[in-house]
Amino acid sequence: MNKKNIVILGGGFAGIYTAMHLERLLSKQKEYELILVNKENYFVYQPMLAEIVGGSLGIVDSVSPIHRLLPKTSLHIREIDSIDINNKTVTLAPQFSHTPLILHYEHIVFALGNSTDFRSTRGLYQHAFPFKNLSDALTIRNHLISVLEASILEKDPILRQKLLTFVVAGGGFSGTELVAEMNDFIQAFAKRSRGRINPDEIDIYLVHSKERLMDREISESLSRYAEKILRSRGVNILFGAKLISATPEDAILNNGTRIECKTIIATAPSSANSLLESLDLPLEKKRLKTDRTLQVIGKTDVWAAGDCAYVPLAKSENEPCPPTAQFAIRQAKVLAHNIYASIQGKKKKTFNFTSLGMLGALGHHSAVAELFGCIKVSGLLAWFLWRSLYWVKLPGFDRKVRVAFSWLIDMLIPQESVQLKLGEHQALAEVHYEPGEIIFHEGDAGDYLYIIIDGKIEIYTEREGEKKSIAILGKGEIFGEQALLNERTRSATAGCLESSDILALKKADFGALISNLKEFREKVEELERERTLKNKKLRGM
Amino acid sequence: MNKKNIVILGGGFAGIYTAMHLERLLSKQKEYELILVNKENYFVYQPMLAEIVGGSLGIVDSVSPIHRLLPKTSLHIREIDSIDINNKTVTLAPQFSHTPLILHYEHIVFALGNSTDFRSTRGLYQHAFPFKNLSDALTIRNHLISVLEASILEKDPILRQKLLTFVVAGGGFSGTELVAEMNDFIQAFAKRSRGRINPDEIDIYLVHSKERLMDREISESLSRYAEKILRSRGVNILFGAKLISATPEDAILNNGTRIECKTIIATAPSSANSLLESLDLPLEKKRLKTDRTLQVIGKTDVWAAGDCAYVPLAKSENEPCPPTAQFAIRQAKVLAHNIYASIQGKKKKTFNFTSLGMLGALGHHSAVAELFGCIKVSGLLAWFLWRSLYWVKLPGFDRKVRVAFSWLIDMLIPQESVQLKLGEHQALAEVHYEPGEIIFHEGDAGDYLYIIIDGKIEIYTEREGEKKSIAILGKGEIFGEQALLNERTRSATAGCLESSDILALKKADFGALISNLKEFREKVEELERERTLKNKKLRGM
Repeated sequence: MNKKNIVILGGGFAGIYTAMHLERLLSKQKEYELILVNKENYFVYQPMLAEIVGGSLGIVDSVSPIHRLLPKTSLHIREIDSIDINNKTVTLAPQFSHTPLILHYEHIVFALGNSTDFRSTRGLYQHAFPFKNLSDALTIRNHLISVLEASILEKDPILRQKLLTFVVAGGGFSGTELVAEMNDFIQAFAKRSRGRINPDEIDIYLVHSKERLMDREISESLSRYAEKILRSRGVNILFGAKLISATPEDAILNNGTRIECKTIIATAPSSANSLLESLDLPLEKKRLKTDRTLQVIGKTDVWAAGDCAYVPLAKSENEPCPPTAQFAIRQAKVLAHNIYASIQGKKKKTFNFTSLGMLGALGHHSAVAELFGCIKVSGLLAWFLWRSLYWVKLPGFDRKVRVAFSWLIDMLIPQESVQLKLGEHQALAEVHYEPGEIIFHEGDAGDYLYIIIDGKIEIYTEREGEKKSIAILGKGEIFGEQALLNERTRSATAGCLESSDILALKKADFGALISNLKEFREKVEELERERTLKNKKLRGM
Repeated sequence: MNKKNIVILGGGFAGIYTAMHLERLLSKQKEYELILVNKENYFVYQPMLAEIVGGSLGIVDSVSPIHRLLPKTSLHIREIDSIDINNKTVTLAPQFSHTPLILHYEHIVFALGNSTDFRSTRGLYQHAFPFKNLSDALTIRNHLISVLEASILEKDPILRQKLLTFVVAGGGFSGTELVAEMNDFIQAFAKRSRGRINPDEIDIYLVHSKERLMDREISESLSRYAEKILRSRGVNILFGAKLISATPEDAILNNGTRIECKTIIATAPSSANSLLESLDLPLEKKRLKTDRTLQVIGKTDVWAAGDCAYVPLAKSENEPCPPTAQFAIRQAKVLAHNIYASIQGKKKKTFNFTSLGMLGALGHHSAVAELFGCIKVSGLLAWFLWRSLYWVKLPGFDRKVRVAFSWLIDMLIPQESVQLKLGEHQALAEVHYEPGEIIFHEGDAGDYLYIIIDGKIEIYTEREGEKKSIAILGKGEIFGEQALLNERTRSATAGCLESSDILALKKADFGALISNLKEFREKVEELERERTLKNKKLRGM
């Protein structure tokens, strides 16, 4: 029997709740199959991610496997390759074979959430950490532990300061919650270091383009509350500032400030999923424009909800719903009803929910909250409220017990900093440098070969304070091969002249390529001969 | 003040306990500095790793940060680049800069443990998972969840069977404990799948080169106990069998058996750390040969303990101590005393411990134990004993509470299978194929470019059952470029003629290289023109 598919893309609040309601509504319509496509097999409440960065790892255990939440839905944990709205198909990328999977749909629901746009800021995807899922949270946690551990032993004061400087870009919900948790974690680590890290050495920056925190999510007075709390804990908040470039050595802001650091986390600029741009569907501010029935404008079989949708707010047609869980959950309910109504030929509902209140977590044992537009609370009481609300909403008794235990232990026992190192396989990394920065110094270890994607690099030596230029290189040119071929340290310095993107090939991978690709080997060897000669001439040898 | 360094390499039982004893013994010798070099910032009890693969993630929280255990030791979490025994230095790889770190030592302690030798078996490092540290355990866990989830939805019966077949190579302590936990985890997953995975479809193999399990660690009668338990749970145990090749499609044994599967985990063959081979120190069975004072033969400042050391057993000079935690802990105590005695010019002790008993965990709620050479127990009682012993040895009250809670929850609440996806950045992967295997089929998606390192590959098409060879390719040749350049599916099939190692370059990285390396682009484009022509001719176009 060929079933009719309802395909839901995305497993955040909007996707999961849509599927949950549809499972119930369609329980007697055996001809329909529910399919959910998601990158992960679990559902995670976003503020939990900030806790994972800063808190106990036990909390990892309290995210919910989607199978448990949606027993009647087929779950595909695969990348989406493409979507064809005209032919009503979704193509999923190959996984354990080379064959993609094509899903036909009767109805499609976009619930892809938003994502951080790493393309619009130079160097961002090379040198900033994303903060979207569990793996990102663990990667950030590990990196924080790495730089903190390294700072304890670092004798170079400049490098030590870079290791102890942290930049979070974006002051929305997730950036603010993250910076609060990170700050707690880093301060606690310093305290436990028995004087080897002085809390005064730590610099944490939250960079936000607007003039107040969480401007899309909460009211002004509440965000001022949050700001005051964070500042009192030592977080530097920079308003009206945007990250315009990231390099291995610093974060560069639109006002010209350079923050020298080894840690940049980007939660902004946010955009909808890049998949949406390639489709012939109406967008508003990069999000799918829907009417108040959650149907994408002009389509009867395409739906959208949550952060990837532009849904008009009940009280004003010109304003969209805020990107919060509260709205996503309510939208999902209406959306599920309306798909069911379409199938049954019944009347659709319109979405006209207005917010009940607002809550934002601010690190261990504090939060800010505003209820029914007037009552405002902060600190422990708000945090307790936040936790309780979350706990009540947790699906399943098991999970409630696990989470309660985990929280109890966290309150009783000090935090730990066990590092979960993830495999670092990155062979071909891209790096970004800005003018004036040094890629490597003469005498450094030869660890990478570099291929210039774009920009200008100068290779030079310094003898008795005098700079001698060896070469100025541009797009498509290779450098750094000498140290790799001869297994010795760098014989010259490489400095950046123009904003440059460079491919960095690890020593081991360079070896693999050079011994297997004749053309590459010949090119590199020729280059090496030329340059050795030139270098010798320059040195008057 | 220039301190005298005692450098300990490795943070397993031997390394950690040596440092713990030395911290105490040298508490008044302010001129000595203790330095520990390890890849991770935590200490983990090996059997815990098997639990992490199969059990609750909360357990991750119960590994011990080394700083907590060794407050007076400098901890370097860096790779070891090289060791110079003559000049008494250890060089650590660059981390956040390009500069390596050189440590001078007065005494050096090798406590590097053993490692799985991935070099001696074809295809092993490309297609088998290692199982040594926390990251390996989490990677395996994730992979298991991936194949299980994928099997639920897979319609091709051959691929489905491959997804549900699992091979563990090596029946020592770690392989046996792992297969027990894996079996529990996979069976439980199948049970929770509500009929979508039938337990009968699952095939789990433990491949061991000897004739009994854990032959180096426990007595024969106890290992027969363990064998019986595992077999009764459905694990296929193959004795006298060795893995001789691993490919993306199967595990090949020395007796010619091919086990088609997507999961191979290697805990054997074990060897000492490959660093040891490059040093001018006496080795026995690839381990550092010491006398019974734990001094490496012929050296007064080089020491070794634990699994990387060949320490004569008290009762017989010709037999080494078994590679167990019990022995490592006792060796560490003697070693620390003897370094202290060397410094003070006092008399050294000799190591003459004999085992108290043996314990091996066998998955959830069971274990086997032998005490004082006679009393044997298995099942829940042994498991309880095993847990209690471990719990008593856990350092710190906090940790004891955490672990107790974690265990309590695990007993009360069913397991979960939340997948912790780790970043998959691997650009340049190496793959291994055996004759008769297909690398890709005509019509498959074009996801990789391949460069042959060694072996022979045939490119061919099939028309009406007739095979037409297009090319036979060897070392250094490239294939798979057509689909990538033209963004379409494979126009021919690539089959393996001889045992082949191949570099696989991901589509995106292929794109990066081709648009930035002129020589590479020219080569690939030329190849593509030639082959398109040839292909057209063959098809009579």
